[in-house]
Amino acid sequence: MSETEFAFAEGGVTAPFGFMAAGVSAGIKKSGRKDIALVVAEKPVPAAAVFTTSSMAAPPVLVSREHVENGLLRAFVVNAGNANACTGESGRADALAMASAVADAIGCERSDVLVGSTGVIGVPLPMDLVLGGIEEAAEKLDLVAGEEAAEAILTTDTFVKATGVAFEVEGVTYTVGGMAKGSGMIQPNMATMLAFVTTDAPLSSVACDQALRSAVTRTFNRITVDSDTSTNDMCVLMASGAAGGETIDPGDPRFGAVASAVEHVCGELARMVVRDGEGATKLIAVSVTGATSEHDAEAVAFAIANSPLVKTAIFGADANWGRVAMAIGKSGATVNSELVRITFAGILTCEGGAAVPFSEEDAAVALSEDTVEIAVELGLGTGDATVWTCDLSYDYVRINGEYRS
Amino acid sequence: MSETEFAFAEGGVTAPFGFMAAGVSAGIKKSGRKDIALVVAEKPVPAAAVFTTSSMAAPPVLVSREHVENGLLRAFVVNAGNANACTGESGRADALAMASAVADAIGCERSDVLVGSTGVIGVPLPMDLVLGGIEEAAEKLDLVAGEEAAEAILTTDTFVKATGVAFEVEGVTYTVGGMAKGSGMIQPNMATMLAFVTTDAPLSSVACDQALRSAVTRTFNRITVDSDTSTNDMCVLMASGAAGGETIDPGDPRFGAVASAVEHVCGELARMVVRDGEGATKLIAVSVTGATSEHDAEAVAFAIANSPLVKTAIFGADANWGRVAMAIGKSGATVNSELVRITFAGILTCEGGAAVPFSEEDAAVALSEDTVEIAVELGLGTGDATVWTCDLSYDYVRINGEYRS
Repeated sequence: MSETEFAFAEGGVTAPFGFMAAGVSAGIKKSGRKDIALVVAEKPVPAAAVFTTSSMAAPPVLVSREHVENGLLRAFVVNAGNANACTGESGRADALAMASAVADAIGCERSDVLVGSTGVIGVPLPMDLVLGGIEEAAEKLDLVAGEEAAEAILTTDTFVKATGVAFEVEGVTYTVGGMAKGSGMIQPNMATMLAFVTTDAPLSSVACDQALRSAVTRTFNRITVDSDTSTNDMCVLMASGAAGGETIDPGDPRFGAVASAVEHVCGELARMVVRDGEGATKLIAVSVTGATSEHDAEAVAFAIANSPLVKTAIFGADANWGRVAMAIGKSGATVNSELVRITFAGILTCEGGAAVPFSEEDAAVALSEDTVEIAVELGLGTGDATVWTCDLSYDYVRINGEYRS
Repeated sequence: MSETEFAFAEGGVTAPFGFMAAGVSAGIKKSGRKDIALVVAEKPVPAAAVFTTSSMAAPPVLVSREHVENGLLRAFVVNAGNANACTGESGRADALAMASAVADAIGCERSDVLVGSTGVIGVPLPMDLVLGGIEEAAEKLDLVAGEEAAEAILTTDTFVKATGVAFEVEGVTYTVGGMAKGSGMIQPNMATMLAFVTTDAPLSSVACDQALRSAVTRTFNRITVDSDTSTNDMCVLMASGAAGGETIDPGDPRFGAVASAVEHVCGELARMVVRDGEGATKLIAVSVTGATSEHDAEAVAFAIANSPLVKTAIFGADANWGRVAMAIGKSGATVNSELVRITFAGILTCEGGAAVPFSEEDAAVALSEDTVEIAVELGLGTGDATVWTCDLSYDYVRINGEYRS
């Protein structure tokens, strides 16, 4: 990993040079909130994307997979409020029509446009509203509207998820920006719900692909809100090259710094998604070390992070570390129970597989923080992994018992 | 599967001849409710047991595994209120001491006694209370106290789970009885939290083992409350032979009927566990047909049954079948989205992978029932499986946010 210094850069996906954005209200969301986002580069630029592994992947995912195949994209358009999933042939036609409308408005090929949709499953898109929104967004494109675009991709999210970093490599300043939305049906697998990352570094298509996949594996693929994987997940990286300089391929000495910045931005966005998980009151970081492999470490970390019993205990500020022991046990990873060490909110609670006395008062204080760390040392090898999740609260039940109606 | 007719038999584990039971309050539970159960046969009898696959299995599981290895048991003792898990060497000594206390009181070998514990993890057993309770239970052993024993193994359960059936094979009446406890940390894997089944049929040890494993695979291993697997799960079958007749081995023509009765009792108990899942307001039966294999059908059924989004939708009486589509997609099973058919609470909502219009009013009526059926046809093969679960309510969060304190 490069040791380049990153400075915060404002503007989300428009933080890097070479991108314009817009976020408008097309009327798809009954609330009247923004629901169409459009982000456009000056020309087709190197790009890469990863998508949900769901076998019920939605039409916009299938269409976008085809459109990014040549490693170039000019724009992406996203609607919130309707996932265009389980909509069959007409759903595919609608996704293609969204790409066509963008292509007509900005002047490019339909296949240069990536399409994302998020919201309720199984309802046809209100295409008159969607197409009107795209037209309006194309008129409003702006060099500093990254935050508005970020607002327009939200569903049950409670805050906008946008960030960016600027950094210098060999005398040139590059910027990476991004936006994402959560906040339920989140255990991405090869992509998150929706995340869009831009950079003005002159990455080639291959470099985009490598930087994105590597970042996603260690960020979006290591978060979970509720263990559910969406039909619409996608994560996209576009590189405008507007900061100047020779094209950067994976072998280039500058590649490490840019890839590291992409991972940094993805990590920030991923943690924002978890912190804003449906009903979440706390961010939980589960770190597993000493596993026989990284795969095993990840399996243990996910078993803990997805355990509703662990998540409700943390919601209740209860240092019930026994539930962590339970989750380790069910993970399927190689475990020697006599070597297990569990630290819960910074407090050693279990060593050599057996309880260690601790102060409940200290635990209560530690559990009142808005971030709780659970650390498990398995004592077997060098495999490690960190997974981020959130607690499970009454509000998760309220939000999801009432979501569709 | 045999077509023997089963008549309900009262008394739980004491419904069959040849077993005495007791349930007493030893003071382990702060509430003062019963917390020690003891069930005793007249002599060491054929028995089999399956245990949690957790790599953090609790000392009573490890001890009981050794004690049932020779296929014979005289008694089992269970305490509720403390799981004796993550308790290390002293936990093992405590589990052995429980077996010894029973052996001394009833006159048998320590290794003829199976030990179960359920409750909080990581706290040493209060052995003075436990041993006092065992002594009292041994004095109170009674031929009709099956319900009291069933009461004494409960933790957060809201009702006693006991049942039994009587049936006739070749002119002899046999009885199978059982008891179980839930009600959180329930996705058993090769056994459930705690379930004890007795019969007076003269099964051999091998027949016990085969009947139990086959029943558990299709009953306790097909339920889930919260996807969490306990450190203390066990399911035991003891066969007193007190109904008379020659020993029944797996090849015997009578074996099918007895095995079927064991599965029937396990199925009833498993569904009781789910119906009494923590905070549950509804029982959910998820049936998957047309999968390429039984394994795939089970994977899809569990993906749906464990989805918090599906479970909260049913709590909210919302026919949000799109979440079922999502869960099918993430299951990892072979799926052709264009062949998928989803019936939600008896209403066809998705065919050929696309939405089918339905009456929301009909759906609301169907979802107000206390059992909701979700049926998925994959259209690929002959693999099928049914998994039972419950909804996810505010009370699950309340119970588990407050459990330990």
